[in-house]
Amino acid sequence: MTRTRDRELRDRASKVIPDGMYGHQSVRRLPEEFPQFFSKAKGARIWDVDGNEYVDYVSAYGPNLFGYGFEPVDRAAAIQQARGDTLTGPSEVMVELAEAFVGMVSHADWVMFCKNGSDATTMALVVARAHTGRKTVLVARHAYHGSAPWCTPRPAGILPEDRAHIVNFNYNDAESLTDAVRSHAGDVAAIFATPFQHEVFHDQAEPNAEFARVARALCDESGALLVVDDVRAGFRLDRDCSWARLGVQPDLSTWGKCIANGYALSALLGAEKARQAASEIYVTGSFWFSATAMAAALETLRHVRESNYLEHIIAAGLRLRDGLQRQAAGYGFSLRQTGPVQMPQILFNDDPDLRVGYAWTGECVRRGVYLHPYHNMFLSAAHGDQELTRTFEVTDAAFASVKQRRAGLGPVVQLTRPRRPGSN
Amino acid sequence: MTRTRDRELRDRASKVIPDGMYGHQSVRRLPEEFPQFFSKAKGARIWDVDGNEYVDYVSAYGPNLFGYGFEPVDRAAAIQQARGDTLTGPSEVMVELAEAFVGMVSHADWVMFCKNGSDATTMALVVARAHTGRKTVLVARHAYHGSAPWCTPRPAGILPEDRAHIVNFNYNDAESLTDAVRSHAGDVAAIFATPFQHEVFHDQAEPNAEFARVARALCDESGALLVVDDVRAGFRLDRDCSWARLGVQPDLSTWGKCIANGYALSALLGAEKARQAASEIYVTGSFWFSATAMAAALETLRHVRESNYLEHIIAAGLRLRDGLQRQAAGYGFSLRQTGPVQMPQILFNDDPDLRVGYAWTGECVRRGVYLHPYHNMFLSAAHGDQELTRTFEVTDAAFASVKQRRAGLGPVVQLTRPRRPGSN
Repeated sequence: MTRTRDRELRDRASKVIPDGMYGHQSVRRLPEEFPQFFSKAKGARIWDVDGNEYVDYVSAYGPNLFGYGFEPVDRAAAIQQARGDTLTGPSEVMVELAEAFVGMVSHADWVMFCKNGSDATTMALVVARAHTGRKTVLVARHAYHGSAPWCTPRPAGILPEDRAHIVNFNYNDAESLTDAVRSHAGDVAAIFATPFQHEVFHDQAEPNAEFARVARALCDESGALLVVDDVRAGFRLDRDCSWARLGVQPDLSTWGKCIANGYALSALLGAEKARQAASEIYVTGSFWFSATAMAAALETLRHVRESNYLEHIIAAGLRLRDGLQRQAAGYGFSLRQTGPVQMPQILFNDDPDLRVGYAWTGECVRRGVYLHPYHNMFLSAAHGDQELTRTFEVTDAAFASVKQRRAGLGPVVQLTRPRRPGSN
Repeated sequence: MTRTRDRELRDRASKVIPDGMYGHQSVRRLPEEFPQFFSKAKGARIWDVDGNEYVDYVSAYGPNLFGYGFEPVDRAAAIQQARGDTLTGPSEVMVELAEAFVGMVSHADWVMFCKNGSDATTMALVVARAHTGRKTVLVARHAYHGSAPWCTPRPAGILPEDRAHIVNFNYNDAESLTDAVRSHAGDVAAIFATPFQHEVFHDQAEPNAEFARVARALCDESGALLVVDDVRAGFRLDRDCSWARLGVQPDLSTWGKCIANGYALSALLGAEKARQAASEIYVTGSFWFSATAMAAALETLRHVRESNYLEHIIAAGLRLRDGLQRQAAGYGFSLRQTGPVQMPQILFNDDPDLRVGYAWTGECVRRGVYLHPYHNMFLSAAHGDQELTRTFEVTDAAFASVKQRRAGLGPVVQLTRPRRPGSN
């Protein structure tokens, strides 16, 4: 496996991009085997700039739902692009997409489109404050809702005022949430919740129905708005808002990532009662009305409604989880595979500093399967038999190699660099 | 001129989008002749959903620099799209684009890409605070730097804390700026300045060189960072940062709008001294590393460097300004055409409530020339002889019509709606 081109590009990038790369796609904290730069993608496969091929379980950190280069979506986007994308006003497809989206999400009566997940979550916060005339916003401790000043996980350049009136509670802990509401009685504008608990470096946890029902009841009692942040998980758990599975309907939900199968689009969806507040805030962006990504989303949503993609992804996720569990046990490893099978988090027991997980994902990447050592992954409808068969060949060899190397594994140097404190 | 389809889409949109549309592309405050929805675009022309054609002087509010559907850029984007857009890591084109951009902007040693203009301006603010360890950010009164909570022009849902430590000064007023710095001595993190004064509803004003030099000197003395917000004007005034014309180099500059000729991309560029701070903040977005828009930007920047687009746009802008001035005088109107000719703002003298300007731009739109009554406009390299000739036919007829109607013109109802207070 060569890395010549990747190393050359990293050198060049380090001159013109701070730290060589930034944000969630920097590989600075990943095992050294992970390439930084990619050259192409198709289905569930990606190729790095040195020509090495991978079965990709990260799926662009979510956007790839139906496969890279999914032809029906790319075709719809290309047709719209030829007509017009970023114009002096929106295109007809914006109305069609708004109708389709609102028609699929039970709690929603309206939608506003934007570009980043952070746009949608920030709009939800502003709408909730406009609607209630209150300040306090409750957010689960360590939950990721984006990288705007009010929610970014790293403190550099952020003022205490940016986080004013953001109050934490513990996810899946109805008592903690109730206490937080009571402590700010009369001033709670919103309760934010991710559809399940998906934090980097930690086991994932499904929401318990009691917690979700209490969140809804507390909002109903207090007049606060319930916000489900479905940016990361939307359409991988359900064809509706992810908490519809629990029988709980939020007032606002935020979407992004895969809603246009990789084209840049996010959205805030809301219930009737928040419509007036949503019309009073001022939010916009140069490309929020661009039509190409909306045409891609319209086609993506059609496939969400009409295909069995979700059942396929769940079946593939189950097969991956079961197969890895068996392989791991055969080599004397014990895995913690948590969260929905469609969005697996894979950590090793007896691996407090992640050295085994880093070694194993590094061995997998070296052999052509891209698995992440500490971030949840995302299966797509393009993860089929061939990909899983190839995956199990590689993961088996990786377990075997790590079993041999285990005693000699040192601490993960990527996690101990002084420049990178323990934030995202 | 029919409006059947536009009216039908507005009705449908009003059900599923708050207020029927939001942000800068809502036509709620524009003359009734303005269509809300468009179907296609090419060069400097746009077509509404009823098939009416317009010479478009708004250019998507900036993004259209080389013409809609500009083939070299669309071709570069399509080639990249076929390889891969939103992947599990960035593509090689990100490094190429970073090198090209930094190579063109004199003050810049590094760049970070993002999606919205607001992303770039917010990153500038956070970098400046991280770099200085200070809080106060100086912003010209009424200047638009985006719609994030710290800068959005409408107060709904915004807390005083969101604006904490944002301090105003008067644009082009070196004394006002100096006073603001002195009043917050020791705590100024940044001075923000747009490249010229471009506020809705007001005459535009070129920056005076003294003001720019004082801003630079105050930053040098105090250690604050000077930020030129070039999101709106970048590459329409210069092939470098817009203040390079004044001989003043900022520490940070923000870009967006036209840098990828309509594809969704924005950027923060910075000088060496701010690199460390830029590497310490945590900012990211699901689509910030997407390659298609970067390939479009790489080709756009090549045309910025290698074509005479800028000289062409300036010549077209001069011809438009001169022609309109002559026509207006011939009909007894007096225009205030302000700002750079490439980005004209056209207001009427003796028109305090804009009724003449609304009537005139309404008559122009009715006849197929899209001019804005209160927002600065944007010429593109596709505004050629044919477009200008067509424009002058229409504007002449519009002046003639408004001259006849003038005595009967009433107040502009779009500006007196209770739901829309006098903010953006």
